[in-house]
Amino acid sequence: MLITLTTDFGYQDSFVGIMKGVIYTINPAVQVIDLTHGVPPQNILAGALILQHSIRYFPPGTIHVVVVDPGVGSSRHPILIELDGSYYIGPDNGVLSLAFERQRPSSITLLSKTDFHLHPTSNTFHAREIFAPVAAHLSLGVAPAEFGEKLASVIELTIPKLVRRGHIIDAEILYIDGFGNLFVNIRERELAGLEKERLRISLGPIEVGGLSTNYSALGNGEFVCVFNSWGLLEIALNKGSARQRTGAKIGDKVTIAPKAD
Amino acid sequence: MLITLTTDFGYQDSFVGIMKGVIYTINPAVQVIDLTHGVPPQNILAGALILQHSIRYFPPGTIHVVVVDPGVGSSRHPILIELDGSYYIGPDNGVLSLAFERQRPSSITLLSKTDFHLHPTSNTFHAREIFAPVAAHLSLGVAPAEFGEKLASVIELTIPKLVRRGHIIDAEILYIDGFGNLFVNIRERELAGLEKERLRISLGPIEVGGLSTNYSALGNGEFVCVFNSWGLLEIALNKGSARQRTGAKIGDKVTIAPKAD
Amino acid sequence: MLITLTTDFGYQDSFVGIMKGVIYTINPAVQVIDLTHGVPPQNILAGALILQHSIRYFPPGTIHVVVVDPGVGSSRHPILIELDGSYYIGPDNGVLSLAFERQRPSSITLLSKTDFHLHPTSNTFHAREIFAPVAAHLSLGVAPAEFGEKLASVIELTIPKLVRRGHIIDAEILYIDGFGNLFVNIRERELAGLEKERLRISLGPIEVGGLSTNYSALGNGEFVCVFNSWGLLEIALNKGSARQRTGAKIGDKVTIAPKAD
Repeated sequence: MLITLTTDFGYQDSFVGIMKGVIYTINPAVQVIDLTHGVPPQNILAGALILQHSIRYFPPGTIHVVVVDPGVGSSRHPILIELDGSYYIGPDNGVLSLAFERQRPSSITLLSKTDFHLHPTSNTFHAREIFAPVAAHLSLGVAPAEFGEKLASVIELTIPKLVRRGHIIDAEILYIDGFGNLFVNIRERELAGLEKERLRISLGPIEVGGLSTNYSALGNGEFVCVFNSWGLLEIALNKGSARQRTGAKIGDKVTIAPKAD
Repeated sequence: MLITLTTDFGYQDSFVGIMKGVIYTINPAVQVIDLTHGVPPQNILAGALILQHSIRYFPPGTIHVVVVDPGVGSSRHPILIELDGSYYIGPDNGVLSLAFERQRPSSITLLSKTDFHLHPTSNTFHAREIFAPVAAHLSLGVAPAEFGEKLASVIELTIPKLVRRGHIIDAEILYIDGFGNLFVNIRERELAGLEKERLRISLGPIEVGGLSTNYSALGNGEFVCVFNSWGLLEIALNKGSARQRTGAKIGDKVTIAPKAD
Repeated sequence: MLITLTTDFGYQDSFVGIMKGVIYTINPAVQVIDLTHGVPPQNILAGALILQHSIRYFPPGTIHVVVVDPGVGSSRHPILIELDGSYYIGPDNGVLSLAFERQRPSSITLLSKTDFHLHPTSNTFHAREIFAPVAAHLSLGVAPAEFGEKLASVIELTIPKLVRRGHIIDAEILYIDGFGNLFVNIRERELAGLEKERLRISLGPIEVGGLSTNYSALGNGEFVCVFNSWGLLEIALNKGSARQRTGAKIGDKVTIAPKAD
């Protein structure tokens, strides 16, 4: 049985190590995998996107624990979602919601049954006292309904949508990865009907060129635009960081338009 | 059997990966968990505090290897401590000493028996040649006494103590976590007898407010003071970094005083 | 069976977590170890050096996956090398080549058999679609020859060589570790015939002293020169970062010369 961990806890502290200690104390036979702990602090959308684009690479039955939780200790709910035989555990703040964008979960459970929590429970570290032990007990075969009462719905995030103005598409930067590559909220199928070879992509006032097939299609230090491993348009810099070169940040505008004749 | 690793080796190099290779070569069945490798370089106190606040979440019998070791290759001792059926391996420079603040270890062993070391032994990487192989052999059931001669005591760290001036408490920053939260050397029980709702906390000249119950009790960008997962007073910034906002560093003074009427 | 992962993917994203999901989906019984994911982005030589100095600490039969791959999606070859009963998987850009500097691989295989790949295959993340699944299938016992056709040779990196001018040696910085220690391309045996106690080491115009046996041989904040865990001359700063103090970078010149009388 696999448990994955995704958090914004970073790598300086032992917060993640403690989660693993809690899990292995309860179920020594489970396998724990770090999805990442480098989610930008308190960035719920980034955590949700990372989860969304990772889960298809894990076997059914995997338990995904996602903790980007600025509201820890407040009234926000700790929840467990079951979907297609896999499980999602975390705070009900939207961070789990992109995992099932177009589907309805089989069940949503409020983690109210405190028998499965560590005590005393702090107001700052529910990953240790609630999310990790619940994941471990779930991996031992405890049924979702045992962890608390049913909920009818969860908080859902919305992804910023494209705007089309005739042949021009207004998009924006959705995520920036550790290489400094800029991920834009547009998928290849959304270019249907356009002449791809003639498209020109601009980041604000900076023209970054047309579509390429891979990072090294152009020279070092040149911008390259590709459809990437998330299926999104990506503005990269061959052997460099597009983020550093441009100073771009999440939410910045990107325009896709046909080349002027 | 679990082995945890805590070091200041960071994440750029393969130093930690090599330790794991050494361990799994000797005992392929052991489970190795990273507590963290982000201890600030050469910061023995930070390593000791991280260990101290993590060990209770691991099962008895766990072997904790802690390497913050600026004196590697000098005359400082490599040691193995047994306490309550768990084990602590590292340099004798204080980094292990907060794990047993109020207790006496069952045994302290100098890792002098070179049969259990890798050869040749460098002067810069005893984690590879001494600490990792000793941990692996210990996990296979070798008795502590086999690794070398007994020692009577170890080097102990002292935590800076509070100073009380009437109703005013002078404290200081003990640790700063990866979120930029400031951990202060005061526990909730040390406020006994004071009116908690009326306390005001200052970081040098900056008043950071009173006690809250959780990070989001106040607005974004506001300071919040909570008792955190280490049981310490923590000065945080809701959805931000108190370290960045204030420029605070370890050792900076914090004052807790009743609100003036 | 062990699989190690070495990449320049960093720790912000879930790229490495996805590789592990792919591997454990194919072979749930394998053990995956991170060598490091902090290779400086696109730095093929750094990745090759890290691999070279790590592999001897892993048991025979280990599968090493190394992905520093700026040419992903271009015509560069994905390959599998067998040497001494261990395996090396990655792009054919030199990153694997220092693992067998003085030996001839038993076999080199082009990973052309797409049955072992994930589909669809992107142009940006072959670690997910080619290297991880091939490693997992190999760990299940699939023979190297099953993965594709034989290749006669691979791209090899060259390490900058020393230059000797009489009793003076001109060397250079080959690698800088996460502590800011400067690794110089000279091994202890290359000082044979010189009076070691009388040698003086300079980094450009900065004299950094003679050889020491360990980091704390001199005072805090002093430079120390040692032969390190890679067997290379290392310029370090006791309890500090030589990189920060000097601003040194890879390729900077280092001179070793006898002390003037």
